[in-house]
Amino acid sequence: MSKKLTSRAENYSKWYNELVVEADLAENSAVRGCMVIKPYGFAIWEKMQAELDRMFKETGHQNAYFPLFVPKSLFEAEEKNAEGFAKECAVVTHYRLQNDPDNPGKLRVDPNAKLEEELVVRPTSEAIIWNTYKGWIQSYRDLPLLINQWANVVRWEMRTRLFLRTAEFLWQEGHTAHATKAEAITEAELMNNIYATFAENFMAIPVIQGLKTESERFAGADETYCIEALMQDGKALQAGTSHFLGQNFAKAFDVKFTSKEGKQDYVWATSWGVSTRLMGALIMTHSDDHGLVLPPNLAPNQVVIVPIYKNDEQLDAITEVVNGIMKDLRAKNISVKYDNRDTYRPGAKFAQHELQGVPLRIAIGSRDLENGTVELARRDTLTKEVVALDGLIDKVEGLMTEIQDTLFNKAKNYRDNHITEVDTFEEFKKVLEEKGGFISAHWDGTAETEEKIKEITKATIRCMPLEGKIEKGICVLTGRESARRVLFAKAY
Amino acid sequence: MSKKLTSRAENYSKWYNELVVEADLAENSAVRGCMVIKPYGFAIWEKMQAELDRMFKETGHQNAYFPLFVPKSLFEAEEKNAEGFAKECAVVTHYRLQNDPDNPGKLRVDPNAKLEEELVVRPTSEAIIWNTYKGWIQSYRDLPLLINQWANVVRWEMRTRLFLRTAEFLWQEGHTAHATKAEAITEAELMNNIYATFAENFMAIPVIQGLKTESERFAGADETYCIEALMQDGKALQAGTSHFLGQNFAKAFDVKFTSKEGKQDYVWATSWGVSTRLMGALIMTHSDDHGLVLPPNLAPNQVVIVPIYKNDEQLDAITEVVNGIMKDLRAKNISVKYDNRDTYRPGAKFAQHELQGVPLRIAIGSRDLENGTVELARRDTLTKEVVALDGLIDKVEGLMTEIQDTLFNKAKNYRDNHITEVDTFEEFKKVLEEKGGFISAHWDGTAETEEKIKEITKATIRCMPLEGKIEKGICVLTGRESARRVLFAKAY
Repeated sequence: MSKKLTSRAENYSKWYNELVVEADLAENSAVRGCMVIKPYGFAIWEKMQAELDRMFKETGHQNAYFPLFVPKSLFEAEEKNAEGFAKECAVVTHYRLQNDPDNPGKLRVDPNAKLEEELVVRPTSEAIIWNTYKGWIQSYRDLPLLINQWANVVRWEMRTRLFLRTAEFLWQEGHTAHATKAEAITEAELMNNIYATFAENFMAIPVIQGLKTESERFAGADETYCIEALMQDGKALQAGTSHFLGQNFAKAFDVKFTSKEGKQDYVWATSWGVSTRLMGALIMTHSDDHGLVLPPNLAPNQVVIVPIYKNDEQLDAITEVVNGIMKDLRAKNISVKYDNRDTYRPGAKFAQHELQGVPLRIAIGSRDLENGTVELARRDTLTKEVVALDGLIDKVEGLMTEIQDTLFNKAKNYRDNHITEVDTFEEFKKVLEEKGGFISAHWDGTAETEEKIKEITKATIRCMPLEGKIEKGICVLTGRESARRVLFAKAY
Repeated sequence: MSKKLTSRAENYSKWYNELVVEADLAENSAVRGCMVIKPYGFAIWEKMQAELDRMFKETGHQNAYFPLFVPKSLFEAEEKNAEGFAKECAVVTHYRLQNDPDNPGKLRVDPNAKLEEELVVRPTSEAIIWNTYKGWIQSYRDLPLLINQWANVVRWEMRTRLFLRTAEFLWQEGHTAHATKAEAITEAELMNNIYATFAENFMAIPVIQGLKTESERFAGADETYCIEALMQDGKALQAGTSHFLGQNFAKAFDVKFTSKEGKQDYVWATSWGVSTRLMGALIMTHSDDHGLVLPPNLAPNQVVIVPIYKNDEQLDAITEVVNGIMKDLRAKNISVKYDNRDTYRPGAKFAQHELQGVPLRIAIGSRDLENGTVELARRDTLTKEVVALDGLIDKVEGLMTEIQDTLFNKAKNYRDNHITEVDTFEEFKKVLEEKGGFISAHWDGTAETEEKIKEITKATIRCMPLEGKIEKGICVLTGRESARRVLFAKAY
């Protein structure tokens, strides 16, 4: 069924690309840089969506839907935002194709169907949404406005990789409006917190919450909060961002409100998003040379049961027992799939479920029936044990928590062991080269130094962590004063 | 809060447009023909999505995601499909904007960033999906392939109306592949059945299942099944379609499979979809001059509770009782919202919930607390009654079913009373003019006659019903032989 994957040690990047395709998560499409998310990969994304959506709604947010297209005149209204996205956007210029007179059977753009104003396919929706909010916000009674959108966006990236960086990707984008600056900042922090909670409790990925430097901020934001994760190859991955947008968009789109006291003021804004990029983080944090490893909280099938039989009579007897197990597991909200396909042998099924990261496999053969046992195989540890059918449900329930915790702790140990404090640039380069991970170093706070370090080492400032001690020091590159350590890393 | 709506009798079309905006369902955007779906409207759509998604998954379908863009060369591969959609598609020709040297602060398309091949924003995804299926299908073991996608699509319609016909709309599109023609036809019928069940059980809209005539078929289909509903103004609305695509796309994209017997053959296909257009059907079927009327099975809030109080002490006492009611209603899976906003008076809240179609309103005042009563107001019948707090939960639970049934039966009575058999063209025109609705008439089976009737009366053949007697007769227009009656109507 599946060919052996390239090992991580041999070629991490190749391992990732092969795994994504072989585990049936996604594949490249006929459209440059755009991916097809296959059913198994999409089922994981759906589980992520469901949890995030629940968390958004529990904190008072509502979903809505805004247009895919942004007229050029709106796109360019907030200058920094426009500048940030203009270089990589898909532009609709025509609204019709016609038969190509020079190529029978082929079509061409109809030159008479040129749009008066070009439409940008949304790379992010602040412009179209703030233009809409102008009509929705008049008074303090209309605030706060807490809205989220699940949507596709397009950024014309030149170098793409499945899930990590694609021309079209799926995401959610929250866009909120507030009466005060303080409330908007609290919102931006709250949503970054929700992302961190989601990453840790569901994805089993430890993250560092922090602030971006000015040069790494979202185009149009006054402050960008982020969650940063560390992959197994020592590279960091920005897993989510939450922006305090100040009054930038309110001013660009003239969105004012009347306060209780009858005073007019511009509205304060946030936006925040996570995308299918999270799939890349999930894969690269836990998976191994055998394939995908999924935390139970996001696995489409937490348990798979494979019958081992020689004839229909044996299969029938096994199936009867399996039906009882499935009923009991489902009663405990554990998702289970019975893989009784007769077109594949058990060995091929085992290989597929291992490759696809099903947390727990249960195999039941005729001898098991006689002995009142089943065989359990954990995907995370690749260990097997024979256990009694009696007590199986509690055992499996316990394992779901144990596997989830094991994955998180393993990732956290790795991450914690890969945060290195350095005080010289030599050390900086040596650690980056030999060990990778986050480097905690002093920086003089200038964009020039940040850029120079990036040029020399390819490491960027991932964030200024929100937690931990703030100590003064001297910049590793320039020797100038530094107000605090920041985290550097090479990043996806 | 809300201005009075134009009445249906005065101007049905205006009534609809006003209602959609006033009830906070959707509004027009800055992009020609594209709508913004507002949070309340989107919450209804989310309920529809959840139910449909459950029904699709229960019948073995999986979700996936395919690219937004279709390269022109793929778009034109299936000739009829291309011809059907070429005239109204958005075309991406460039991938970058740049500063406009002639207009400081403005952007323009970068002439150096022209795509080698134009990309069509998907009007439907058969082309991109069948090009993908080519890589997924080799053997009978890969079949059936049962995939659905929730997505946005763009059709450059010239005359648009909120929900009913918009340039961008949201929908689901199922795309399945099968080993045999019979299996594909069964699938197309199954999905049309699911649409009918959903429409009747959740939307409370009676529908007629039927087949489209050749001229009304989906471009590229061999057969199109549909569900047709009737609106209150006597016009029909196509609420969903399910297509048997034959081997047309398999041939256009060269998708073959090897059978168990080792024989190669092209794959058989279906596609099927419903869209945000359903929102239009829902609104126009049940709503009245006071605003939206929602069936309980799709209402974001099935019950709203409004406290009537003069001071905080009264409010606290009411709130305590309300908390108990909410807990008990939620335990019965009845969604309830406590509208305790202090920025609006009870009258304004009543008006808003009436306008927004909340099925049941409960008002509780201080005197109610003394008497152990509450006031119930049904949105469908606009009737009020005072009932005992004791037994309230069961009463509300019963009303949810009763309101759902009442709406369906009312719509069904109207629909059934508006199917008229006619045998002459004079009668045809008279009924169409004076009564509207479906006209069951004989037709000679030719596209010419169909077109001519459309030209004269604006009525089209909505479908050839799957159920009911098949009787021969003579065509109302030409007097030629007719194999069966078909249903004509003016339609949205």
